[in-house]
Amino acid sequence: MPEGTEMRLANAAPACLFCAGDGRRPRVVIVGAGFGGLSAARALAGAPVDIVLIDRHNYHVFQPLLYQVATAGLSPADIASPIRAILSRQRNVTIVLGTVGGIDKENRAVLLGERRIGFDYLVVATGARHSYFGHDAWERVAPGLKTIDDATAIRRKVLLALERAESSEDEDERRRLTTFAIIGAGPTGVELAGAIAELVRVALAADFRRIDPSMSRIILVEAGPRILPSFPECLSAVGQRALARLGVQLRLGAAVTACDEGGLVAGGESIAAGTVLWAAGVAASPAAAWLEAAPDRNGRVMVEADLTLPGDANIFVIGDTAHARDRTGKPLPGVAPVAKQQGLFIARTIIADIRGSAQRGAFRYRDFGNLATIGRKAAVAEFGFVRLSGRLAWLLWGAVHIYFLIGFRNRLAVVLDWLWAYVTFQRGARLITGADAHGS
Amino acid sequence: MPEGTEMRLANAAPACLFCAGDGRRPRVVIVGAGFGGLSAARALAGAPVDIVLIDRHNYHVFQPLLYQVATAGLSPADIASPIRAILSRQRNVTIVLGTVGGIDKENRAVLLGERRIGFDYLVVATGARHSYFGHDAWERVAPGLKTIDDATAIRRKVLLALERAESSEDEDERRRLTTFAIIGAGPTGVELAGAIAELVRVALAADFRRIDPSMSRIILVEAGPRILPSFPECLSAVGQRALARLGVQLRLGAAVTACDEGGLVAGGESIAAGTVLWAAGVAASPAAAWLEAAPDRNGRVMVEADLTLPGDANIFVIGDTAHARDRTGKPLPGVAPVAKQQGLFIARTIIADIRGSAQRGAFRYRDFGNLATIGRKAAVAEFGFVRLSGRLAWLLWGAVHIYFLIGFRNRLAVVLDWLWAYVTFQRGARLITGADAHGS
Repeated sequence: MPEGTEMRLANAAPACLFCAGDGRRPRVVIVGAGFGGLSAARALAGAPVDIVLIDRHNYHVFQPLLYQVATAGLSPADIASPIRAILSRQRNVTIVLGTVGGIDKENRAVLLGERRIGFDYLVVATGARHSYFGHDAWERVAPGLKTIDDATAIRRKVLLALERAESSEDEDERRRLTTFAIIGAGPTGVELAGAIAELVRVALAADFRRIDPSMSRIILVEAGPRILPSFPECLSAVGQRALARLGVQLRLGAAVTACDEGGLVAGGESIAAGTVLWAAGVAASPAAAWLEAAPDRNGRVMVEADLTLPGDANIFVIGDTAHARDRTGKPLPGVAPVAKQQGLFIARTIIADIRGSAQRGAFRYRDFGNLATIGRKAAVAEFGFVRLSGRLAWLLWGAVHIYFLIGFRNRLAVVLDWLWAYVTFQRGARLITGADAHGS
Repeated sequence: MPEGTEMRLANAAPACLFCAGDGRRPRVVIVGAGFGGLSAARALAGAPVDIVLIDRHNYHVFQPLLYQVATAGLSPADIASPIRAILSRQRNVTIVLGTVGGIDKENRAVLLGERRIGFDYLVVATGARHSYFGHDAWERVAPGLKTIDDATAIRRKVLLALERAESSEDEDERRRLTTFAIIGAGPTGVELAGAIAELVRVALAADFRRIDPSMSRIILVEAGPRILPSFPECLSAVGQRALARLGVQLRLGAAVTACDEGGLVAGGESIAAGTVLWAAGVAASPAAAWLEAAPDRNGRVMVEADLTLPGDANIFVIGDTAHARDRTGKPLPGVAPVAKQQGLFIARTIIADIRGSAQRGAFRYRDFGNLATIGRKAAVAEFGFVRLSGRLAWLLWGAVHIYFLIGFRNRLAVVLDWLWAYVTFQRGARLITGADAHGS
């Protein structure tokens, strides 16, 4: 390219991205490129709208497999796809990397640093963060698992605990460092506990000289009476047996009352643990405050049947950010299928709206079932009246997750990593990277 | 595992790792698990010694492919293997994660934080860092490429520059942000420039809406008269043509005189560049100071013919940390084969020493050739009188690098990523992760 050539604008997007819509085509601004936001953007591919999709990261994360990154089974790039690559061929979408600071409802604009992005339709799909039920000091000690950076931080924490145990001269300290506590026995907590047990007790068993990682303790703490409370009781029992086989110790009915660097207190029992992980609660992003909306007790925005903000028919809230209800009035769970179906639903609503439809339908969630995995070869699955467990459920779980992973390349790489891990019991992604990568 | 069970020590390693040797078996302490240190440790597998291998990271990096991580072609785990996994079956080695602070030559101990690790034989293989030739302020602006964290930082920097250009309203700023300057046209600089050109101008070409990445400028700056100075002149010319085909602009005979956030000044020309990368010089680690040894002008320790520190027959310095000479007195280059052969050589020396051999041989480097790649399908290779270029050299380059990548799993994953990139022009690892992952 010769010197002085002007950078050309690549397509027919508005000359200034951040001016308000100029009346040509309605602008749809989507905040968040998780399952909900991405599904909405894709469903609007052929629609006569200009879409602006904003996310804090340049990639979409397949959250159901984050725990495998945290336990060194997969690399971040295996479960994350660049948003620009996913939507590369969709010409009516402009992607903006940035952190939204607020929403100006009156003037129909999203605030992004010093910039304002005007909208005709707004889709808020900002997901959820962890809730520590008022104990914010616990966050530093007991990290949760919501992002790629969370996952690599947990991987670092788990691997460094073993490194420090190997170097320690003190028996109690070695015992503490080889104790891993996971708080919360929903699907994330169960999957994390199973995967840590396999990583520490099997994959790393031969790799240390002064400690024996296979003697590590993995403790799963749950305030309720059983694990996997969203599943039928019989599957909880199956899951408990599978965890016991992996050597995971259970503490049921044990509410956490203290948590610091040394460990935690759960159900009155003091547990010295070098690694404490949080899988107990989620709270929505600050969307409710941005929208001046009434949140539920988990910080989610209460929405109408058509997933709009009460009193504003052009602002939609979906996914983990929204409190929507099923036909019986029960709140919908914070899982990927809900977010994806909601994204599709509101995209259709926007298209109908532009075509002049006066009526709006209500969102109906089609529940195709529920899956959770517990280490190698064990899982539980529920599809209406069909309940599965054991190896068949595990194979089903693998097939479903690979199928839904976005991008052919990721699917292949995941299959390869999994097959390799299955055959060798090894973990390929055991890297301690980032700021605290050093042992000292 | 029932409560109260004692953690057992897993093998016959010395009861306290950090006491001086107790006379049973000589202890060999190796600092650094790069090509040199790892090769020494492996060659001592059957020897009657206790080895302590110390590294700042828990993984060994295949440095020749680091530039592919920096340009989003490979994931960190594709080119890094956990040291414990590599040496899992070698029972006479203990691995310590930590940063060495100094060496106590008098009392035969390595200082690691507050701990001392006694040695009978010491191998210093701590590699090299970048040298900014006295301009230390340039380091922050123009990062170099020596570690996995360097590579992910460069990947973040390159991808964020394009994101910022996409969001910028200013023509000059967009032009600056889509200009990438690489300083130094040795193999690393040439490979980096070629890979950035392919990433930005081809892989990402369709992914932006307001900028056209294919119009980006990639400028390779070199103070000397030609690229790849360690290769014959005819191959330099081939390399220059290959770079030109990729759209890389060359500035030969252009010494850098200034470098800041806005860009750089090279050979009197002022170049506004949003990304400046450093591939111009290396300097050894602080080993010379630790050993109170005379360094050469690059900070490397001058060693005897048997790679020992002058005056101390039990301290070896190898790899990029050492200044060793070939038969003609020419310093050996800082490449992987030199380090690997040196590791093997000193391992044999130590074994002979223990067996009571009074004599020591001199290290001789066997040069099997020289390879560098310039983007897709182009490379240059030199093996004595045989010189190759173009697609055949590229295939050879691929085969050699895959062969030498440690660990079967890594080889398979790399082949998969490369084939995928080759077929689709896509890059799988385009993730902006880490502290500065946000766009704002």
